[in-house]
Amino acid sequence: MRKVIFYIATSLDGYIADTNGGIDWLTMPVENPQPDNNYEDFYRTVDTVILGRTTYDQVTTELSPKHYPYADVTSYVMTTKPLDDHDNIYFTNDNIIDLVTRLKAQTGKTIWVVGGSAVAKPLIEHNLIDEYHLAIIPKILGDGIPLFPQFSTTPLPFTAKESYIKNNIVYQVFTK
Amino acid sequence: MRKVIFYIATSLDGYIADTNGGIDWLTMPVENPQPDNNYEDFYRTVDTVILGRTTYDQVTTELSPKHYPYADVTSYVMTTKPLDDHDNIYFTNDNIIDLVTRLKAQTGKTIWVVGGSAVAKPLIEHNLIDEYHLAIIPKILGDGIPLFPQFSTTPLPFTAKESYIKNNIVYQVFTK
Repeated sequence: MRKVIFYIATSLDGYIADTNGGIDWLTMPVENPQPDNNYEDFYRTVDTVILGRTTYDQVTTELSPKHYPYADVTSYVMTTKPLDDHDNIYFTNDNIIDLVTRLKAQTGKTIWVVGGSAVAKPLIEHNLIDEYHLAIIPKILGDGIPLFPQFSTTPLPFTAKESYIKNNIVYQVFTK
Repeated sequence: MRKVIFYIATSLDGYIADTNGGIDWLTMPVENPQPDNNYEDFYRTVDTVILGRTTYDQVTTELSPKHYPYADVTSYVMTTKPLDDHDNIYFTNDNIIDLVTRLKAQTGKTIWVVGGSAVAKPLIEHNLIDEYHLAIIPKILGDGIPLFPQFSTTPLPFTAKESYIKNNIVYQVFTK
């Protein structure tokens, strides 16, 4: 069955954005950087991305205004005020759990949960994330938007699959 | 100069204990476990440990009631109600920042901040931890006592030094 993967960068203390939603802290000067294909290798496995509306707006206005970076896959943008669908970008106010359950039942490649936290939160709580691919940026932010929501559960076990350092980033994979 | 190291196990979502302070979730059955000397290798570098009173009580009553596991090094137990010092265990209501600053100025081996969060918190906030040695247990707890406190700071940068998996635990080292 196709997988739902949460691939995201996080600070050492578990934040995916600062208190203002900013991600400037992700950039990190490194001496003699090595080639790093982590993102490209992952993205090749993906045919569907899911984004919250805030993340979508951040991507299309700030991060990559000229070229939508997920144009070659199917995008679902979760929003209470859907725009008209265009190209292969679908705006939806569907329940995220229903959407992901429906997508998983279809054949296809990896479903990437891009973020943000409002989209990821119910999926984490319902244990619908099959794999966490984390890129840990070794900075302590002190505060911000947390990667993991607070919720009540019995411990949800995962398997540590991969862990390596490149250009001062710790890449980790945890699978169900 | 001797180092202050926070060596601790944490859940995937960044908790060092569950909501009741419990650490049952640390135990994890693993098929064909490999020899793992991470703790022993680290402990050999230590000559001083710092514990909060709750952690000390937990160690001496629940975890290891018959044999105090840090008997061969100097212990500082932070408490508002000091007991009589005995052997090389010193009970103190000193300010933790003053204590650590004083110890760092002395010659010696690694100072291990064992925990708990009340002891670690001011040291993290004042960026007095030279190295974080984290053993990530791949479970999502949802709630509990967080490893990293929430506080206001500019991003504190670290270097990712080590990351490997053994027996389904991700061992990581971050240095200042």
